[in-house]
Amino acid sequence: MLTDQAQVLDALQQALPGRVETDPSTLEQYAADRSGHRAAAPPLAAVHARSVEDVQAACRIASEYRIPLVARGTGTGLAGGSIAGQGEVVLSLAGMDSILEISPENRLAVVQPGIINGELNRVLADHGLWWAPDPASKDICTVGGNIATNAGGLLCAKYGVTRESVLALKVVLADGTLLSVGHRTVKGVTGMDLCALMIGSEGTLGIVVEATLKLQPVVAGTKATLGAMFASLEQAADAATSIIAGGHQPAIMEMVDQRTLRAIQAHTGQQLAEDAGAFLLVQCDGPQALEQAQAIGQVASDAGGQVQVSDDPVESEKLFELRRGAFAALESQGTMLVEDMAVPRDKMAEAFRAIRAIEEKYQVQIPTTCHAGDGNLHPAFVYEGAQVPQNVWDAAHEMFRTALDLGGTLSGEHGIGLLKRGWLKDELGERQYQLQYGIKELFDPLGILNPGKVFTPATTNNTTMEETRATGSHTP
Amino acid sequence: MLTDQAQVLDALQQALPGRVETDPSTLEQYAADRSGHRAAAPPLAAVHARSVEDVQAACRIASEYRIPLVARGTGTGLAGGSIAGQGEVVLSLAGMDSILEISPENRLAVVQPGIINGELNRVLADHGLWWAPDPASKDICTVGGNIATNAGGLLCAKYGVTRESVLALKVVLADGTLLSVGHRTVKGVTGMDLCALMIGSEGTLGIVVEATLKLQPVVAGTKATLGAMFASLEQAADAATSIIAGGHQPAIMEMVDQRTLRAIQAHTGQQLAEDAGAFLLVQCDGPQALEQAQAIGQVASDAGGQVQVSDDPVESEKLFELRRGAFAALESQGTMLVEDMAVPRDKMAEAFRAIRAIEEKYQVQIPTTCHAGDGNLHPAFVYEGAQVPQNVWDAAHEMFRTALDLGGTLSGEHGIGLLKRGWLKDELGERQYQLQYGIKELFDPLGILNPGKVFTPATTNNTTMEETRATGSHTP
Repeated sequence: MLTDQAQVLDALQQALPGRVETDPSTLEQYAADRSGHRAAAPPLAAVHARSVEDVQAACRIASEYRIPLVARGTGTGLAGGSIAGQGEVVLSLAGMDSILEISPENRLAVVQPGIINGELNRVLADHGLWWAPDPASKDICTVGGNIATNAGGLLCAKYGVTRESVLALKVVLADGTLLSVGHRTVKGVTGMDLCALMIGSEGTLGIVVEATLKLQPVVAGTKATLGAMFASLEQAADAATSIIAGGHQPAIMEMVDQRTLRAIQAHTGQQLAEDAGAFLLVQCDGPQALEQAQAIGQVASDAGGQVQVSDDPVESEKLFELRRGAFAALESQGTMLVEDMAVPRDKMAEAFRAIRAIEEKYQVQIPTTCHAGDGNLHPAFVYEGAQVPQNVWDAAHEMFRTALDLGGTLSGEHGIGLLKRGWLKDELGERQYQLQYGIKELFDPLGILNPGKVFTPATTNNTTMEETRATGSHTP
Repeated sequence: MLTDQAQVLDALQQALPGRVETDPSTLEQYAADRSGHRAAAPPLAAVHARSVEDVQAACRIASEYRIPLVARGTGTGLAGGSIAGQGEVVLSLAGMDSILEISPENRLAVVQPGIINGELNRVLADHGLWWAPDPASKDICTVGGNIATNAGGLLCAKYGVTRESVLALKVVLADGTLLSVGHRTVKGVTGMDLCALMIGSEGTLGIVVEATLKLQPVVAGTKATLGAMFASLEQAADAATSIIAGGHQPAIMEMVDQRTLRAIQAHTGQQLAEDAGAFLLVQCDGPQALEQAQAIGQVASDAGGQVQVSDDPVESEKLFELRRGAFAALESQGTMLVEDMAVPRDKMAEAFRAIRAIEEKYQVQIPTTCHAGDGNLHPAFVYEGAQVPQNVWDAAHEMFRTALDLGGTLSGEHGIGLLKRGWLKDELGERQYQLQYGIKELFDPLGILNPGKVFTPATTNNTTMEETRATGSHTP
């Protein structure tokens, strides 16, 4: 261990007694997240913050010693944003998991960042309230992580992304200053919206230590669910587009392609029709859920779908199982890399066609699920072993290019992290990239907050990237 | 005229033939907006942009000659944000008023910034679509202005502020570069959210030349309206708080205080009960509008209100008239300065009490209306003559202090502009102010975009402020 690393550890342990983890074997867990990506070596240490003051102390020490600080919740990210490698210090917020306030009058909750999304919603339900962001990982991911990535989920088309459900944040800056951004009020326009800027910045601008969340009343009534099987993906995509164009507002609209359906059939033994080419799942909520679902069912049927509609909870659950089993079925076939492109809603069919062409060209299979209500596709690559094959990277590269060509984006909801930083400039262009990087430097002039994430390091600070490349893990 | 000003005019006229207005008598209009504020002298010129290229040319020339550029729509702002004074050039976007695209499939519209909000919505209605932001000035204000101020309105508590209804922007930077921020997709998390940063930045970061707007389906069904008269403002405020706490979601909830009610009575001759202390107006929409309004009526009645509920359009309109007539009634009594504080929803009664105490202390009357669904108060000062009396400024100062003490904000929806820049640091604190100003400098290093607005000039560039102070107009 280098002398300066020993000094850092000593400073951390002195300032944060009982909070600093240094055992390399347990630190290994912080070298990975759920992206499949892993740093070559574990981080130097992990600080388990229990208070705002702990976070401030860690930031001050990191600033003093110029040590990279990687904020982390439960590590469920899919883009490598919270992976920490050699010489870096993990700042774990998982232990700061209290609900500080629930105010039905103001329809808000004040929470610490480490609270689990699903746990928060269980508590809120007793007050008739609900925090809308619902990433698939909601039972294991933290609210802080949702904020860091501006998390999406199944309900975004109707209920918005995380940004729309956050009123204010307390943030510790790189130098340890505690900053309050946003408003406790519904409206507020004093200067720039630094709260929105912070949301989705993936730990590069500051450490979120408290969040004031905008809540909604629990949606009353019985939900209604629709399942429709189509002969082709294009038909299903066209149905989804027609549903939106027709002014319908489903709470959830998901699409599952044939490859994924076959994987589910193989994995669960569920019998699907021979000609099942794509599955569309729709859920409606609110006072007229069933009427809405029936009207949507008509659109789906007109588009060629075999439609089932039900507001019976058991029947609904059966329809949902097809979508829910998708990733487990694919993971049973090998190592899975899930992508996250989004396209305008009327380009879904085209995106699917492009993915089929990419499959042919690079000789890969790309089973794809899709949040069809908002055009967010999750093409998945399944391969053998830990190393991403070159043809998968090449296919991914062309897929991102396709997303941009269709007026879409590299990442709908997972973020950039380590996995996509190589393509960020393709989407932003040089000037916007420089402006964003300029903001990063303004907030974090020493570059200690999650360096190498989102933005590709120019020449220095490239350790994590180089290491992981050396081991052949997922970074392009 | 100074030589360099002549050179600027010459450069503008050469680059933008037929687009440059220089007649001082017509330029006078740009020295004011609807805040009551007026610069001492008219600007040097106005450029009437017709294209993105026009805007780029104006920015390049302004950069070359270091001339302040003040973006402007129809000048309906209430904070002085688009006022242009001596030596400044107005960049009018009012002529860029086309709708470039309406896509029901993607539930979006692409528009130029000069389109009038109400005009856009009239066109969208034919497609069964709707852009939610609804400032009171919607029939005369531009979408670009709505974006520049992150405009609110009556429907925000249910349908969100402007930020929630903008997907992407094209922006011309100070040096003339055209930048695209945001996404055409519902979701998108590539790097920082510069689109949200741009919204509400009041022309200080860039010039919005195109906006991709997120639309909603027109809300179907008959609206239901509730009017409730209360003996006191506190009762009405408590009723409003109980309505929110009870999980109800009115589309509109407005409150009118006794002073305003008396002014309306005097102005329109409408007879109100002797003991009418405050009026609460609620409107519900959607499939169960009437049931919702009736349930809310019960809450209002329990809180001591005399309640009327109707889904008859004529009856509804009568109830609305009371709220709608408020500002006209007050303006008939003198010069009006409308303030715009917001407080957490459970602090409304307290805010009203504080305003009554401020009235006493400074011997002013402060009739107040309120968007009660989101805690946004519009206390108004009515006085004789053009000059704001000192006790009004003192009362306003204490009112802002009160808003902050209650966990609220200086400005719910009007923005900072010139009128409130003196208080901005009180809300943001020194560090956040410096970060915001740092972002301003990053985007606009020469300081040519709306200088002196939002941020108080340090030592230089203070012309507008000094001039207007000298004439005793509204700037504190």
